[in-house]
Amino acid sequence: MESKIQLLVRSTHIDVNRHVNNTKYLEYLEWAREDFYEKAGFGYEQLLELGVITVMVNVNLNYRKEALYNDLLTVITRPIEAHNRSFSVGQTIYREVDDALIADAVVTLATIDPNLRKAVPIPAALKAIFT
Amino acid sequence: MESKIQLLVRSTHIDVNRHVNNTKYLEYLEWAREDFYEKAGFGYEQLLELGVITVMVNVNLNYRKEALYNDLLTVITRPIEAHNRSFSVGQTIYREVDDALIADAVVTLATIDPNLRKAVPIPAALKAIFT
Amino acid sequence: MESKIQLLVRSTHIDVNRHVNNTKYLEYLEWAREDFYEKAGFGYEQLLELGVITVMVNVNLNYRKEALYNDLLTVITRPIEAHNRSFSVGQTIYREVDDALIADAVVTLATIDPNLRKAVPIPAALKAIFT
Amino acid sequence: MESKIQLLVRSTHIDVNRHVNNTKYLEYLEWAREDFYEKAGFGYEQLLELGVITVMVNVNLNYRKEALYNDLLTVITRPIEAHNRSFSVGQTIYREVDDALIADAVVTLATIDPNLRKAVPIPAALKAIFT
Repeated sequence: MESKIQLLVRSTHIDVNRHVNNTKYLEYLEWAREDFYEKAGFGYEQLLELGVITVMVNVNLNYRKEALYNDLLTVITRPIEAHNRSFSVGQTIYREVDDALIADAVVTLATIDPNLRKAVPIPAALKAIFT
Repeated sequence: MESKIQLLVRSTHIDVNRHVNNTKYLEYLEWAREDFYEKAGFGYEQLLELGVITVMVNVNLNYRKEALYNDLLTVITRPIEAHNRSFSVGQTIYREVDDALIADAVVTLATIDPNLRKAVPIPAALKAIFT
Repeated sequence: MESKIQLLVRSTHIDVNRHVNNTKYLEYLEWAREDFYEKAGFGYEQLLELGVITVMVNVNLNYRKEALYNDLLTVITRPIEAHNRSFSVGQTIYREVDDALIADAVVTLATIDPNLRKAVPIPAALKAIFT
Repeated sequence: MESKIQLLVRSTHIDVNRHVNNTKYLEYLEWAREDFYEKAGFGYEQLLELGVITVMVNVNLNYRKEALYNDLLTVITRPIEAHNRSFSVGQTIYREVDDALIADAVVTLATIDPNLRKAVPIPAALKAIFT
């Protein structure tokens, strides 16, 4: 179970330093996690039906190399582990042209009840992806 | 040496889950670091005159509580330490109304030469903030 | 009935040309319209209770002057007119320090049913703001 | 001379109303204009060599239909006309799956000297695209 998306660095991702702004990496990672959930059969609507939305607990992100305008990037998302109340995925961003590692991250998430806004146990079906 | 900024959560910071999107926290942290640099006398232009721009090396960010539309937030930035080639700051985001901790992060940065795009030692004047 | 908000130009609003990116003006205008609705007693929740959300029909936006990092800006929103199925507001962005006009826009909006995703007549109470 | 780009609606383009936020359309249009310039041989670097950057003068944008998460969109950019100090392009956004018109816009731009920050005549080579 691994998800891979491609994306093109667009002009509005670039900051005054002429590279991808640090904040945009988190957007790329979110896009890739959505793909991961969908590929696993747990898209936003499916998770809502299970009574949960996912929320960030922690992100630990290493910036390895600058990404530049018009770079074609690949983001890979892999499951790491799931506990009762949180799960984590490993995410890596590569540059297509030379497979250079641009960034890597471990993201820890939890599930909350969208109405009560309280943490709830990870649904068993979602947890099963991690075993 | 500590910097404190206030900001109001705006509609475009909110996502489909009706809270501040995880990616926006990195924007809030960047805004606060800019203030930190400026307060210390090392704004973007001053750093350019020293021959450097700052770039992210790592962010380790804990999401503690949801921030909601129209929340007034405070972001505090404090120096942690500086080495030859990197330095780190601690950043915390509080909700004004009740001082609730929304997020905390340690951000590690480096300085690069904006033309050569290579890491260079942290300028001594900037390093001095951390001692 | 007029709304006025202040905002500070932040680092992530700035693009490679070292001024506020053209797309950020639309964010500033949205923030100001939200304030306009709230001041008039028709915030997001109140409009939901009336069975509607507002959606953009047209924006006609003139960019008059560059806005720069750390500029303090004021955005003023005034009602223009309301018809059965659309209404329009005039919005202007000024720079605080010298009252320079940065941008002005006319924005036309409609109301839709958030479940059916179809246009519905502007609620009478909302329409009354415009007379 | 016409440019066409494809893009996928990503999660961070979606707002609380579960459709693409109005401000993101301006990003899509900017991405498409960059492609238009590049296809015409006037990418950002080439324009810098001609001593100019392009800036927005006016955008007149019609929102025709909601765009939704995961929609594949096409943005077409066509030259309209060029005067001495401004030029305009027509831009349309379509949904791939059924060719539905999502938005159309006329965008008027000018060229400025990036150092003096003053309007300068449109370079002849760029103007020639429009004839």
